[in-house]
Amino acid sequence: MSSGFEAIVWKENKIVLLDQTQIPISETYISYDELAPYIDAIQRLVVRGAPALGVAGAYGVVLVIDEAARKGHSAQELEHNLDLLRDARPTAVNLAWAVEKIRKHLPEGRDAVLAAAHQLASEDKQSSTDMGNIGADWLINKLGSKPMTLLTHCNTGSLATTGTGTALGVIKEMHKRGFVKEVYADETRPLLQGSRLTAWELMKSDIPYHIEPDGAAAMAILSGRIDAALIGADRIAKNGDSANKIGSLSVALACHAAGIPFLVVAPESTVDRSIKTGSEIHIEIRGDEELTHFKGIQVAPIGAKTFNPAFDVTPAKYISAVITEKHSYEIAEGQTL
Amino acid sequence: MSSGFEAIVWKENKIVLLDQTQIPISETYISYDELAPYIDAIQRLVVRGAPALGVAGAYGVVLVIDEAARKGHSAQELEHNLDLLRDARPTAVNLAWAVEKIRKHLPEGRDAVLAAAHQLASEDKQSSTDMGNIGADWLINKLGSKPMTLLTHCNTGSLATTGTGTALGVIKEMHKRGFVKEVYADETRPLLQGSRLTAWELMKSDIPYHIEPDGAAAMAILSGRIDAALIGADRIAKNGDSANKIGSLSVALACHAAGIPFLVVAPESTVDRSIKTGSEIHIEIRGDEELTHFKGIQVAPIGAKTFNPAFDVTPAKYISAVITEKHSYEIAEGQTL
Repeated sequence: MSSGFEAIVWKENKIVLLDQTQIPISETYISYDELAPYIDAIQRLVVRGAPALGVAGAYGVVLVIDEAARKGHSAQELEHNLDLLRDARPTAVNLAWAVEKIRKHLPEGRDAVLAAAHQLASEDKQSSTDMGNIGADWLINKLGSKPMTLLTHCNTGSLATTGTGTALGVIKEMHKRGFVKEVYADETRPLLQGSRLTAWELMKSDIPYHIEPDGAAAMAILSGRIDAALIGADRIAKNGDSANKIGSLSVALACHAAGIPFLVVAPESTVDRSIKTGSEIHIEIRGDEELTHFKGIQVAPIGAKTFNPAFDVTPAKYISAVITEKHSYEIAEGQTL
Repeated sequence: MSSGFEAIVWKENKIVLLDQTQIPISETYISYDELAPYIDAIQRLVVRGAPALGVAGAYGVVLVIDEAARKGHSAQELEHNLDLLRDARPTAVNLAWAVEKIRKHLPEGRDAVLAAAHQLASEDKQSSTDMGNIGADWLINKLGSKPMTLLTHCNTGSLATTGTGTALGVIKEMHKRGFVKEVYADETRPLLQGSRLTAWELMKSDIPYHIEPDGAAAMAILSGRIDAALIGADRIAKNGDSANKIGSLSVALACHAAGIPFLVVAPESTVDRSIKTGSEIHIEIRGDEELTHFKGIQVAPIGAKTFNPAFDVTPAKYISAVITEKHSYEIAEGQTL
């Protein structure tokens, strides 16, 4: 499923995280049974990726209950700790959502809470598998049963979910079926999730790959090297406009110009039908230092201002299909999800 | 002209180079009157940029003659040293072209050679000025007399020429006329010429700017922030297809999708009418390390393969006009330069 590693797992009454800050240099696992270091790990991005953070929240509730029992916390202390866990990363909606969902089982006792957390993790894993199958079926139906060269952006694999991933999950399923020739992975500036994380996952899965600068994606696509591109999504509007890691829009434009498929792969929970179009999606603008410095090394003039949006929005007209764990949606103009 | 600095100048019988490897950390000038350290400087990219390398070759011929006189070199030694200079960077055609052009004046004596080198430098500087005026006229004619937000990619300014630059020269002329609101400078992976060099030049010219990841250019353009984009060119085919730093094509596609002007600015010498279309332009593929490491820090799995093309080719249909020191060419389909 996840190429011999798991981003997060409940084991011997502890939460075991694969330390993503150390990848690709080393594969280090850290066990947690106390809240303070666990929150620190969440904040330092030891674990990241929307679906994985949901699972981190779910198991975190059990961790808080177990620590309270060991240390004799009062009910108020326990509830306060759950609030601290929920709020560990304010912008990570999945974390807060999962904590609130799982803590509702508190009156049923500790084992019921653990069972609910396992259930949430299991559903997340299954969701990857289903997206993988629906996406692979779509590609083969559209392009035929043949080895393909696929392009992806950012990291959407087993490091971001408890399963095979969203876009990367489709690529892994295609590989399982023998239809992946190779993968072009955008390095994904500024945080390099592509070269650091996606490349590592592809290596672990024995899928041949090339890392490329984000600016090389258009050339790779228009020169005929690529059969289809697949990305994840952070939020999808009712009309299909999709917000994803900055740089995704460029990939979509190049696919459109070349006439090759461009797929958005994300769970149904990512579709926000309260938002009519992408123009309503709030885009987080991040700080200057991610661009002016690299690991502490200055690479721009002192005082340089930056334009550093975390996401861009790809209009639905450039998206061939949105793949979820339930459907493949091909959205014609004027239609909605 | 060049914002208070010069990439290369002949001064007190020495060649003075602004050390571009130290920008933006420090502004350091180094004087050369011997060939060995001068060739080393050219190879370490102390001086870079096609037009600037032409001037480096021209003054280098005088340096070789003066060193020969001081050290009593034979005529054969002198000619051998000129060959070494010419071949210092085999892919830099301007360097070899200028050495061959200037050494022809050898029989006329040292001062005639220096005069010819000054003439070449002066023509390069004038070429920037003329491109700046023709490009600024084109933009104002097309978009009106108003402050504009302009986007550029890589470095095409006074660090790459002896004048104001090509694309950046047009931006500086627009600024002189009061029509630049601000500039979005792509950081230009993998070598960061945008954040290291262009940002520094813009700062020196007091032009407001933002650095952005290359992947953010499409969002900046399609969100309506940008009025026009301008890039340089390394080679232009007869049909207008233009090779430039990797990432240029993405900018062109986004401008096309947004319906805003996309200009290629380069001297006439860049137009290669022996090449019919961009498909005949050879694209240099560079090594893995530029993507797998950053200043020696590993950012990808060991053994990762990369796709690292130095250039991409923008088809003429996405180019609003090619600006040279002589003309603005708007190339309709089926027409040629």
